[in-house]
Amino acid sequence: MASAEILSIGTELLLGDILDTNSQFISQELALLGINCLHRTTVGDNRERIIENFRLALNRADLVISTGGLGPTPDDLTHECLAALVDGATDFDQQALDRIEQFFKVRGAVMVDSNRKQAYRPRGAGILPNPVGTAPGIIWEMEADVLSRMGIQNPQRKRFVLTFPGVPSEMKSMWAQTARGFLARQFEAGVLWSCELKHYGIGESALAEQYADLLDGSNPTVAPYAGTGECRLRVTAKATSVEEAQKIAQPVIDQIRRESKHLCYGVDRDSLESVIAAELRRRGKTVSVAESCTGGLLSKRLTDIAGSSAYVKLNVVTYANEAKEKLLGVPAALLAEHGAVSAECAESMAIGIKKLSGADFAISVTGIAGPDGGSEEKPVGTVFFGLAANGKNTVLKRRFPEQLGREGIRYRSASEALNFLRLYLLDPRLLDA
Amino acid sequence: MASAEILSIGTELLLGDILDTNSQFISQELALLGINCLHRTTVGDNRERIIENFRLALNRADLVISTGGLGPTPDDLTHECLAALVDGATDFDQQALDRIEQFFKVRGAVMVDSNRKQAYRPRGAGILPNPVGTAPGIIWEMEADVLSRMGIQNPQRKRFVLTFPGVPSEMKSMWAQTARGFLARQFEAGVLWSCELKHYGIGESALAEQYADLLDGSNPTVAPYAGTGECRLRVTAKATSVEEAQKIAQPVIDQIRRESKHLCYGVDRDSLESVIAAELRRRGKTVSVAESCTGGLLSKRLTDIAGSSAYVKLNVVTYANEAKEKLLGVPAALLAEHGAVSAECAESMAIGIKKLSGADFAISVTGIAGPDGGSEEKPVGTVFFGLAANGKNTVLKRRFPEQLGREGIRYRSASEALNFLRLYLLDPRLLDA
Repeated sequence: MASAEILSIGTELLLGDILDTNSQFISQELALLGINCLHRTTVGDNRERIIENFRLALNRADLVISTGGLGPTPDDLTHECLAALVDGATDFDQQALDRIEQFFKVRGAVMVDSNRKQAYRPRGAGILPNPVGTAPGIIWEMEADVLSRMGIQNPQRKRFVLTFPGVPSEMKSMWAQTARGFLARQFEAGVLWSCELKHYGIGESALAEQYADLLDGSNPTVAPYAGTGECRLRVTAKATSVEEAQKIAQPVIDQIRRESKHLCYGVDRDSLESVIAAELRRRGKTVSVAESCTGGLLSKRLTDIAGSSAYVKLNVVTYANEAKEKLLGVPAALLAEHGAVSAECAESMAIGIKKLSGADFAISVTGIAGPDGGSEEKPVGTVFFGLAANGKNTVLKRRFPEQLGREGIRYRSASEALNFLRLYLLDPRLLDA
Repeated sequence: MASAEILSIGTELLLGDILDTNSQFISQELALLGINCLHRTTVGDNRERIIENFRLALNRADLVISTGGLGPTPDDLTHECLAALVDGATDFDQQALDRIEQFFKVRGAVMVDSNRKQAYRPRGAGILPNPVGTAPGIIWEMEADVLSRMGIQNPQRKRFVLTFPGVPSEMKSMWAQTARGFLARQFEAGVLWSCELKHYGIGESALAEQYADLLDGSNPTVAPYAGTGECRLRVTAKATSVEEAQKIAQPVIDQIRRESKHLCYGVDRDSLESVIAAELRRRGKTVSVAESCTGGLLSKRLTDIAGSSAYVKLNVVTYANEAKEKLLGVPAALLAEHGAVSAECAESMAIGIKKLSGADFAISVTGIAGPDGGSEEKPVGTVFFGLAANGKNTVLKRRFPEQLGREGIRYRSASEALNFLRLYLLDPRLLDA
């Protein structure tokens, strides 16, 4: 089994200013490729230590993957240090420079001289294209002669070095576009195939208990993961081909989908919003939302989906009581009697936005995201939801823990609203439970 | 200056199943203590590699801090491996066992036999109490004789090893209760203080060129960092106290703020939205937004700020042309002639939402977030912004790179809209440039 090491480069990492999420992403990807990651190391923007740690990594692993240090500034040293491991020789890549110039051009900006640096790479290394930024990485297949000149042990054993910038979005694009396929071809050591079954409305420990027998299995393995208000069960199978692995996993996947019922809303890249999107498009229906405490997040999540203009026409954020009255027709007397954070207001908002927009379905959210505004009767985290559809109006109350904080309460509220609509679309009777 | 290395132990880290937030926390704490963290390493639950990496760390640093591998199961190996570095000798600590038994007792649980293991520690090491869990750590002050027996270089230079469990809440409690004070006493070597100057509207390389002289400085140091459409300059000073360090950094901070002018929008935790929030609250003014392509994200970001109900009353997401016409009064003829993605529509939307909401300032966003909907004339990434205030209406056009993807284009569009308002609040004449 091939072994790998990840090298994260950047003083800002060692100062704790940013969290190294890149290493986790790459670790997960390597696991899926069946490549054994044995070490991860982080060093700062220091020439001596970068060189020393590349050497150490090449002595310990077949594959070394670095992130960071590819920018245009003097403290971006990755490629320079890799070149220094051999003889310092670099090649200038006119095509890479053209791409960088083009990158600035389409933004109406002028390339500064320091960006030229990004078009140099160690002699013998190939380019790892960066579709979303200026900094290309390299793919360097190191043969015995190069490894000997570097003084690496076992030079007859081929090594691979792949470099990525530290910006996560760029790294991930480069991984998906080029690196994943390249590594799969180089290290075809059997495949791991996995699938995530996404759940909403059940906690991690309850899920683990329900499927305790499956969690003890070895092929496929089943593992629960908790997210922000959601839970996933990952089913992973090992085999010689993807098809074979899928065949091994399928009965377990079927079992979980059958037993989890409506609590399992989808797989892998499905999200509450994408599942709703598919269903609304299938039926040719539209939805409209009126938000208070979520402040636009629910609308944002609905429209995260490409093509959402097919089912979203108009949403409103009625933060103030006056806006609720004027735009949605929530009666002033209702607000005075029950307050804006109430089941009555949620229902009235849902009816109001449905009328204003003419949408087939309408959802409303009103609550207290905090940190201020809570009371004994309605503490921070109290949120009401309304749903108006085909003459049926339903309201829902949730109490999220104050400890989630403003951001957490808003996110969970938006999720709950999406799930509210999802359940209705699945079977309106689920809302009566 | 004392140097440190962090060793994270756990196969689940190398598989990417969990994110290593401990290392970030410890890195931040070390920086505040003025201890130079030069390496962070992650290894799995493997005896040989744990031993090898402790040895490597002790050769490279004065202080080695590990997390993970202190639990009761057979793959928890940290203390065993540290003992093995000398001669394998361990001491049994009855008091530690009593505390573990007590821990289970107060929870009404029975201690299983494997927990006994947690009461052993390498001979010569002191205890690092764990107030919230069963696994105590160690504080091991290694003198020359021990270091010599381990074969560590420069044994006359004292080393310290501190071990923590991997559970973040336990690690943090132990840090706060014992480790922080211990390290402050051992390594009273001054403090690092840093400050970030946040920029919008200038790229990383342009910023680095403008301040090339400062980037070469040593105390304070200045380093540029790129974010999603934003840039930061970090100024870091070393001194014997925070006050002294601030005094050293201040002239450079003042210089950057002076020379960057309106491109520098704030420091540290400031965001475009928080800066706008402060200014609107100061003036007692309100803002209202009408969004198309950002789909609610702009409203969400404005209301991320606690207390935003003081200046946000009503926002709308007018995704469909019909909604733009009906709610905002955008003339059908204008839409037919120029299209919804146009300067004319952006201006009309801003005027419309200002009228509807009665807000003091109004912003609009309309554009093509993709992936579909682009044309040769208006490719994906084309976005128009409108601002209506005190009878002055301004429009702005931006072309974001298609490669940013839907999410990136939407995020950058929301940032640009926030910056549009920020510049207006700073000085309306900035919009004429």
